[in-house]
Amino acid sequence: MITVCLLGAGNIATHIYKAIKVADSLEVVQWYNRTLSSLAPYKNEVATTDKIKDLVEADLYILAVSDDAISEVSKSLPFNNRLVAHTSGSVSIHDLNQKNQRAVFYPLQSFSKNLDVDFSKVPICIEVLEKANIKIFKAIGTALGCKTYKINTEQRQTLHLSAVFVNNFTNQLYRIAHEISDAKSINFDILKPLIQETARKVEVLSPYMAQTGPAKRNDKKTIKRHLKQLENEEHKAIYEMLTASIQKTHGVTNKR
Amino acid sequence: MITVCLLGAGNIATHIYKAIKVADSLEVVQWYNRTLSSLAPYKNEVATTDKIKDLVEADLYILAVSDDAISEVSKSLPFNNRLVAHTSGSVSIHDLNQKNQRAVFYPLQSFSKNLDVDFSKVPICIEVLEKANIKIFKAIGTALGCKTYKINTEQRQTLHLSAVFVNNFTNQLYRIAHEISDAKSINFDILKPLIQETARKVEVLSPYMAQTGPAKRNDKKTIKRHLKQLENEEHKAIYEMLTASIQKTHGVTNKR
Repeated sequence: MITVCLLGAGNIATHIYKAIKVADSLEVVQWYNRTLSSLAPYKNEVATTDKIKDLVEADLYILAVSDDAISEVSKSLPFNNRLVAHTSGSVSIHDLNQKNQRAVFYPLQSFSKNLDVDFSKVPICIEVLEKANIKIFKAIGTALGCKTYKINTEQRQTLHLSAVFVNNFTNQLYRIAHEISDAKSINFDILKPLIQETARKVEVLSPYMAQTGPAKRNDKKTIKRHLKQLENEEHKAIYEMLTASIQKTHGVTNKR
Repeated sequence: MITVCLLGAGNIATHIYKAIKVADSLEVVQWYNRTLSSLAPYKNEVATTDKIKDLVEADLYILAVSDDAISEVSKSLPFNNRLVAHTSGSVSIHDLNQKNQRAVFYPLQSFSKNLDVDFSKVPICIEVLEKANIKIFKAIGTALGCKTYKINTEQRQTLHLSAVFVNNFTNQLYRIAHEISDAKSINFDILKPLIQETARKVEVLSPYMAQTGPAKRNDKKTIKRHLKQLENEEHKAIYEMLTASIQKTHGVTNKR
């Protein structure tokens, strides 16, 4: 049994807690948060505390707190030389106080409060300072049914950046499509199968191979009509920039 | 039984053929293409022809040909007053020759040559000039297990434009993430669960509600670091533009 102390009560902490709860050889032995009320729904199934000095012994302390709090919380831990990991995609491993063995346990997924996640499909990116510590994270990955990836700081920060493109920016494109279609009284549901298929395609094809459409075909007539249709200058600028990006990727020479 | 003559041998034609083939009350009675060799794989299961004057009678003629060919092919049809539909998201219904009853049968999905599509999940957008013709398209939708939507020309062209955002542009964001992560020897597979989850989320939340990340939080430190990480000026410009777009959508006042 690998024992874990969980710190924090946000989305990531809650999803980690739920995943560990149903895993065979893992146990959350204590859950800390500075305000106890956030942990109230779980108080009958796990030991909870709001006193950092009361933290019990565990194989691993997961600091699933906000980026800005990592340094301070790690400093306030009342013990030395134990294994402590934060869960952030962007904070340096060196922000963790050096009195403990430092690591990063970064689940690369978008967690929402009320949306359950199949944790076994979440890739866990692991960074350690002492090589020997990788073993326990591999074991945790196996217990959770997750793939784990050993990465370095630069890779983690690059993944965090890449995630902004495939998650936040992609979602904003969905939002723009929602605005455009709403303006003409079109049900956004009509676009959902295409959204799913676009995501599904890159499971089997590279994004390069999956590309289609007027930009790649250099279909100037359609591009011109689309730009004319767009009433919002900002949407127009995004259309032009991403069209140019596709054309650059696919070697379309386009002298307009 | 509703009988269909299919014209064209591209991706859309092929996917429509396969969908009709397995549908109970629909039949492709003839498949036309100007070069017969493209239809060779199907010649033992359906009547094929490359002579437009040999077209047989059918309840519906589906012109799944390229946008530029629609007008000419519809003009060359050797009959009058039958129901003829093109499958384009952008071509006017009036590009079809007026000697026949004109319609549009626009399946809003991204079709690739070697990727099977669950046609029952493809929304079919229908445009007709004679209202009575909507009935046969509803019946075809039912037979295919598809949702059908009656739309007008402006709505169809808006859907086509929206599709560029959620499909081509989204795919280009995947491509950029692929480039960024490749440059640091990161396996693109690590990002795939996040891509799937981002698409899955808008099945249950609006894109507005689903948004997260540094732009929405106005996390200036992270945004600044991301911009510094980006080595490609074009990627930087896209990052800035989509960050500004998210912040405008979510009312983030950001004086830099």
